[in-house]
Amino acid sequence: MKATFIHGTGDVRVAEVEKPTIAEPTDAIIKITATCVCGSDLWPYRGTDEIAEPTRMGHEYVGVVEEVGEEVSSVKPGDFVVGSFCLSDNTCEICADGYPSRCANGGFVGEAQSEYLRVPLADGTLVPTPSHPEEDLIPSLLAASDVLGTGWFAADEAQAGPGKTVVVVGDGAVGLLAILSAKQMGAERIIAMSRHADRQALAREFGATDIVEERGEEGVARIKDLTGGLGAHSVIEAVGTQESMHQAIASCRPGGYVGYVGVSHGVSLPGEELFASEVHLMGGPAPVRKYLPELIRLIFDRAIEPGKVFTKEVALDNIAEGYRAMDQREAIKVLVRP
Amino acid sequence: MKATFIHGTGDVRVAEVEKPTIAEPTDAIIKITATCVCGSDLWPYRGTDEIAEPTRMGHEYVGVVEEVGEEVSSVKPGDFVVGSFCLSDNTCEICADGYPSRCANGGFVGEAQSEYLRVPLADGTLVPTPSHPEEDLIPSLLAASDVLGTGWFAADEAQAGPGKTVVVVGDGAVGLLAILSAKQMGAERIIAMSRHADRQALAREFGATDIVEERGEEGVARIKDLTGGLGAHSVIEAVGTQESMHQAIASCRPGGYVGYVGVSHGVSLPGEELFASEVHLMGGPAPVRKYLPELIRLIFDRAIEPGKVFTKEVALDNIAEGYRAMDQREAIKVLVRP
Repeated sequence: MKATFIHGTGDVRVAEVEKPTIAEPTDAIIKITATCVCGSDLWPYRGTDEIAEPTRMGHEYVGVVEEVGEEVSSVKPGDFVVGSFCLSDNTCEICADGYPSRCANGGFVGEAQSEYLRVPLADGTLVPTPSHPEEDLIPSLLAASDVLGTGWFAADEAQAGPGKTVVVVGDGAVGLLAILSAKQMGAERIIAMSRHADRQALAREFGATDIVEERGEEGVARIKDLTGGLGAHSVIEAVGTQESMHQAIASCRPGGYVGYVGVSHGVSLPGEELFASEVHLMGGPAPVRKYLPELIRLIFDRAIEPGKVFTKEVALDNIAEGYRAMDQREAIKVLVRP
Repeated sequence: MKATFIHGTGDVRVAEVEKPTIAEPTDAIIKITATCVCGSDLWPYRGTDEIAEPTRMGHEYVGVVEEVGEEVSSVKPGDFVVGSFCLSDNTCEICADGYPSRCANGGFVGEAQSEYLRVPLADGTLVPTPSHPEEDLIPSLLAASDVLGTGWFAADEAQAGPGKTVVVVGDGAVGLLAILSAKQMGAERIIAMSRHADRQALAREFGATDIVEERGEEGVARIKDLTGGLGAHSVIEAVGTQESMHQAIASCRPGGYVGYVGVSHGVSLPGEELFASEVHLMGGPAPVRKYLPELIRLIFDRAIEPGKVFTKEVALDNIAEGYRAMDQREAIKVLVRP
């Protein structure tokens, strides 16, 4: 089968590999219907993360179950499934507390940009859809696999809800879908920090009520202006840099909540600033599995259309072009068809 | 009247100053019944915080109202009162959200180690006791003014409660009273990290079920051993150093809660570590005013005796000896009588 490898900075290639087979009785093999390129895939693509050897890529996927191990009971061959980018047994104490992304027996998916994928802990990781989805729902279901679930988590941890003013730092797919999430959760006001016209437009479509183009201290000052001098109740950080984390914390009012989901790169938070800010801070890999049943329902009900973040589609053979387009910000997010 | 000044490292003196008078209609003047030396007073005493000029000290106090401004309605001359170390109007949005320590119109008390104290925003800052307390309750009421309220806040933000395992990093007065707080909140297991026999004894008296003497990675390993490899549900940080913050975060399970109240000194938190830890992090100056009514009730009911942290008492004239004894760890906390 075909699979995607990264070889070095800006160097993504498709190669033939063995089709995966059941290795553990808790495995499932799925035939990928759609996968995509993640903002976090750009860290190694841009050379920020070191690449020691050619490495399989991809952690977002929807597809059809082809085969299951003998202990798998919740999905069966022929089911259309959405899976989290994190593996989880969904039964351990950490899963039970709502953090399947940190399952005591879990791990990460890392080979999804391919034709087939072996998913360990299939019962705890995959969620079957109520029926095979209509074609136009596939991008939205694929978004649920990571970027929607991640934005939803950030909004959830930031306590977005009725009466709340929410600031979203970052206008990539996760930031944009955090806007959609905050809107679904009933937030009163959603301020998107964005400088790109196309992303501002999608931000407004997803529910943003205000756009702030300023960054740094000017950006913080604008947020304070918009929130009676106090800062926002809820802030979502969806970038992962020192600047964005500072922006998020400084935009939040004392006692407020910051949910951060940008994969942290070179961030160092001064304790004095944190102590003085007095904000609730929570983030990390999103427990997407926890939210999947609700997200799938909302998508099947056509209450949300997170698939709009896919502004380009490529065939798996042409995935390098997908990486390039995202790197160059020509596309918000790229859907890949095996 | 007599008041305490710090002049430089290890140099605390009492001097005569003008007795304070009502300056704003929202002020109260109180005659201090008891004040004390705070662990945070040791930062300048030890030279960690710079002292530019002789500076008044003290932010913990109980006393009797002597005079009130014309707008003060909730306390009156003759009332025995406990006040927070933070000033708050108790009506702004931030106060209403439960963070009076960050009142939009607030500030800090800084001249309480004296005979009299002017308390701005008296209505929102002071809480009168149900009656004049019996003498033996005074240390406990004084503890409520900061160290108990601070430990309570840390335990509250760490979500200490039934079924929870709580780790307390730091065995000073705040750490010890965080143990008492977690116990009151119904925590199932409370692990005190302490190396001092006298403090371990008080920790156990306040409700600690386990003592861990190891620190650093060994300390983390011991906590993991005691929590099925997962880490604690709730962690309280009551020191304020890089080591103690790392200890706290690393001892917490994914999805768990860290409440930090040690005044941060030279702390820098790596974003990657935070992202990978995936713990809820919240701390800062404790919103003591929010908890005072409940804490005063518990003390008057003799359900708790936080005053046990005062292991030494000195007269105001002799307060330098109190600083010395705390600096040398001869006393856990020193009560001062004007």
